[in-house]
Amino acid sequence: MTAIQNNAIFLIVCPDQPGLVATISEFIHKHRGNIVDLDQHTDYQTQTFLMRIEWELNGFALDRQELISAFTPLAKKFQMKFSLHYSAERMNLALMVSKYRHCLYDLLVRWTLEEIHADIPLILSNHADLKEVADHFKIPFQVIKVNQENKQEAEKAQLEILKKHKIDLVVLARYMQILSPNFIAQYPDAIINIHHSFLPAFIGGKPYHQAYSRGVKIIGATSHYVTEDLDQGPIIEQSVARVSHLDHIDDLIRKGRDQEKTALAFAVQMHTQHRVLTYNNKTVVFE
Amino acid sequence: MTAIQNNAIFLIVCPDQPGLVATISEFIHKHRGNIVDLDQHTDYQTQTFLMRIEWELNGFALDRQELISAFTPLAKKFQMKFSLHYSAERMNLALMVSKYRHCLYDLLVRWTLEEIHADIPLILSNHADLKEVADHFKIPFQVIKVNQENKQEAEKAQLEILKKHKIDLVVLARYMQILSPNFIAQYPDAIINIHHSFLPAFIGGKPYHQAYSRGVKIIGATSHYVTEDLDQGPIIEQSVARVSHLDHIDDLIRKGRDQEKTALAFAVQMHTQHRVLTYNNKTVVFE
Amino acid sequence: MTAIQNNAIFLIVCPDQPGLVATISEFIHKHRGNIVDLDQHTDYQTQTFLMRIEWELNGFALDRQELISAFTPLAKKFQMKFSLHYSAERMNLALMVSKYRHCLYDLLVRWTLEEIHADIPLILSNHADLKEVADHFKIPFQVIKVNQENKQEAEKAQLEILKKHKIDLVVLARYMQILSPNFIAQYPDAIINIHHSFLPAFIGGKPYHQAYSRGVKIIGATSHYVTEDLDQGPIIEQSVARVSHLDHIDDLIRKGRDQEKTALAFAVQMHTQHRVLTYNNKTVVFE
Amino acid sequence: MTAIQNNAIFLIVCPDQPGLVATISEFIHKHRGNIVDLDQHTDYQTQTFLMRIEWELNGFALDRQELISAFTPLAKKFQMKFSLHYSAERMNLALMVSKYRHCLYDLLVRWTLEEIHADIPLILSNHADLKEVADHFKIPFQVIKVNQENKQEAEKAQLEILKKHKIDLVVLARYMQILSPNFIAQYPDAIINIHHSFLPAFIGGKPYHQAYSRGVKIIGATSHYVTEDLDQGPIIEQSVARVSHLDHIDDLIRKGRDQEKTALAFAVQMHTQHRVLTYNNKTVVFE
Repeated sequence: MTAIQNNAIFLIVCPDQPGLVATISEFIHKHRGNIVDLDQHTDYQTQTFLMRIEWELNGFALDRQELISAFTPLAKKFQMKFSLHYSAERMNLALMVSKYRHCLYDLLVRWTLEEIHADIPLILSNHADLKEVADHFKIPFQVIKVNQENKQEAEKAQLEILKKHKIDLVVLARYMQILSPNFIAQYPDAIINIHHSFLPAFIGGKPYHQAYSRGVKIIGATSHYVTEDLDQGPIIEQSVARVSHLDHIDDLIRKGRDQEKTALAFAVQMHTQHRVLTYNNKTVVFE
Repeated sequence: MTAIQNNAIFLIVCPDQPGLVATISEFIHKHRGNIVDLDQHTDYQTQTFLMRIEWELNGFALDRQELISAFTPLAKKFQMKFSLHYSAERMNLALMVSKYRHCLYDLLVRWTLEEIHADIPLILSNHADLKEVADHFKIPFQVIKVNQENKQEAEKAQLEILKKHKIDLVVLARYMQILSPNFIAQYPDAIINIHHSFLPAFIGGKPYHQAYSRGVKIIGATSHYVTEDLDQGPIIEQSVARVSHLDHIDDLIRKGRDQEKTALAFAVQMHTQHRVLTYNNKTVVFE
Repeated sequence: MTAIQNNAIFLIVCPDQPGLVATISEFIHKHRGNIVDLDQHTDYQTQTFLMRIEWELNGFALDRQELISAFTPLAKKFQMKFSLHYSAERMNLALMVSKYRHCLYDLLVRWTLEEIHADIPLILSNHADLKEVADHFKIPFQVIKVNQENKQEAEKAQLEILKKHKIDLVVLARYMQILSPNFIAQYPDAIINIHHSFLPAFIGGKPYHQAYSRGVKIIGATSHYVTEDLDQGPIIEQSVARVSHLDHIDDLIRKGRDQEKTALAFAVQMHTQHRVLTYNNKTVVFE
Repeated sequence: MTAIQNNAIFLIVCPDQPGLVATISEFIHKHRGNIVDLDQHTDYQTQTFLMRIEWELNGFALDRQELISAFTPLAKKFQMKFSLHYSAERMNLALMVSKYRHCLYDLLVRWTLEEIHADIPLILSNHADLKEVADHFKIPFQVIKVNQENKQEAEKAQLEILKKHKIDLVVLARYMQILSPNFIAQYPDAIINIHHSFLPAFIGGKPYHQAYSRGVKIIGATSHYVTEDLDQGPIIEQSVARVSHLDHIDDLIRKGRDQEKTALAFAVQMHTQHRVLTYNNKTVVFE
């Protein structure tokens, strides 16, 4: 990956057809953009074309509005869905947590090391336990209790705060509540969850207990976008570790924490660098 | 692992209770056996004690019958299930195959390299395709056609041949027929299968297609003992490989072959070295 | 990776400069080539631009000579080194071996499974041991004895045979002789070796013994292009395996074989698909 | 691993000879100790026997002094070096750091999660930068500046503080000064360092730059006991990650951090659980 400078990025999905790579790169070149990274993929099964193209803004002829205006006719012609991003603009992330601290610490330490290029104006929790972690990293921490009775109301409050902070990406860092379809609908492809199993194995609750009981020799963790179907959204990353008969459930939980941290952090890094495209309930990750 | 010499090996499973390690090692020592390897494990959840103990026969006071006679009272006292093995005695393996050659070649090359210490008097197939592979390695190859109509009869013929060759372990090296419960009952913990997924994900048919469709980022293969429940037997080994959106189904199949080879070969190696114990539908693998 | 069809491929290296991606893709588009795969990389440290671009020949306006003629002025302008390949044209591989069989079998089984798209008109050895492996796969096997006295003469004979068979790539599949600088100079970036260590650790002889003696916890194997400097050529692939105090030297050798097979096969696959570029004694592997 | 309870542990090294396992387990059994874990290894090359044996103190007949008195004649007879540990007694760890925070955070978060069973009465640094991390975890932080002029004096001050806090294990969590032979001699097999390369590759300074320059495809980190010879002490653990041409030096550093954290934490966990034995400049790690 290149260092952060002010580049523009297009993410494009459209039906596969001849001439796409050349047409898009010509368009950018014509307006004096120097392409520094081009990654494209064709899914032949569904005849889908997916592309990430990044170019230098230094010397580029078009501002944001001009660029969108100029590109839209092309996009229409080729039935493209496209999004435009500027690498110098930082996303706003909200972290949602409960009581487990390992993913939260991991993300925040990476953030201080600039492994994650984003602003984090908010940590939201249904418990007060992790407030001092948030304080240490000087991030506002807000508690909204959630229980069966107040769930609808609580989600309303959560959504208000997220809107207020102009949150672009919600990261569920071992947040132990299931979000309602209504909540999820507000953030399509913009809520990342970490599930503590190697999906699709061990969907649902207590996956380490399930893994122990089945006697698997490898455990894993899966980061994915949240959709209405529990643990069924597009997978962004998976991470695995060997286990053996020596490992009791506590050991699986301990070894699994490292996989959760790794798979979640990678997903957040890729998303905030505009490297993930979804289609057909899958992801393309342009590393 | 130590080089092959003529050692004796006990595999022992019993309810956990004080004094087991000392009692067993004292027994061997008293009869002038020098213990060269002792590995034990306690499953605290089920209060199960499992042990593999290996000692030199050089100078040992008891022959096979005397050893069993002398040990049986102890075994009864502690409710042990035990089996006795001699490292110099080679198991008889039968390989069952269909048309895929990668696992067959892999096992046979390892066998010529003495990675697998066993005799292979028989390769059984429901197709003639792999005969020349068997010929090359100078192993008798027998075809028994299997179809829906003749399945019972075919299995009868297969079992007869296996008995005739005094087969100790049946290895399903991508054998594409499902064995009947009756067949399986003849070889408890003595039929090893390779399933081409990371179990329990993608049980049943076409697991690579399932994996592609789900968009996983890691694929795997699982070797396990065959039980009546399809793909549900005790897992011996699992092996995984990273995949990405670049990998079409053909690529998953290709990458998966390497995992199948690895996970199956390891299981056969461990079993033939008397390093696997099963209990509670799981395995303990004393590496 | 896409299935094999008749596509054209450019591999290009040149100093980094604005407009390269657009210029090259425009060139191909203008001549009615449909780009199906474009992968590029810029090494900012050395300001080097590297690209692999693949397009469909169906409908493409230029034959090989016309293409080279048309592209050469562009190449001159941008100081490009480029090579042109057609995916339907199979490379000629020669495998050179001594007595170890594992890499040879591995490559040949992959070849029969079409994991390696190439012709193999020749296996060259300094020993007769592996003739029956070659026979089994129906590949001509030639023995040229090599010793200190006849080395120059032997290499002359080897080179003649390689030329006669129009060999494009020489694969040293655990060939136990060191090639002279003169031999190597005949095949720049076209001799692939497998070294049985995780380079640059344990250069030279008996790397598994060195690894055992140092007490490492991970061993590896490295495939690389052969250059005059022993074990110092551009690394194509590395593969590793965990080891422990339980592993004696024999176990390292056994576990290492699997890494050697994997790292060598991957290198041969990438090279024969025109996915490897070298510069600055390193490789770019466009997977 | 079993949960922490008050068990006794012997670590034993001696020349290999018949009867060791039985003799030692009989000794413990005779004094009414129930063995819960026995792991032994014989290095046949050097004829060295190494053992870790753990038993329950509940009901055991001997206190610490009686145990040592009773066992010493046996130890003499078999030329054993042995050490006795009690799992309920927590080691005292000192962490030494400079400016890098990733290993420090990683160790401390694991410590709060009880992945590391030890007391940490002291963080020592040659810079003030990480004081607020220490404060957050409520651990005393002491700065002793070190430079070429005052090194001897500074080490004297460091050693005094370590003695004062009765430190059992010094952990160099990316401490950027080289310790003198005199310092090291005070803590034989009791200083653990993390080196940011896959040793023995890239000994010394700037290993990621060396790795980048060599064009390796896998990077690593190595935790080891510190001896007089720089980066040459017994290796406890190694951890690796794949890299590619896409990774610039900054990416190697970033990916390497995760390996450093993993390899260092594992070493500290194993050491504090009395699972590591050294001999012949290597380690045996009884996982």
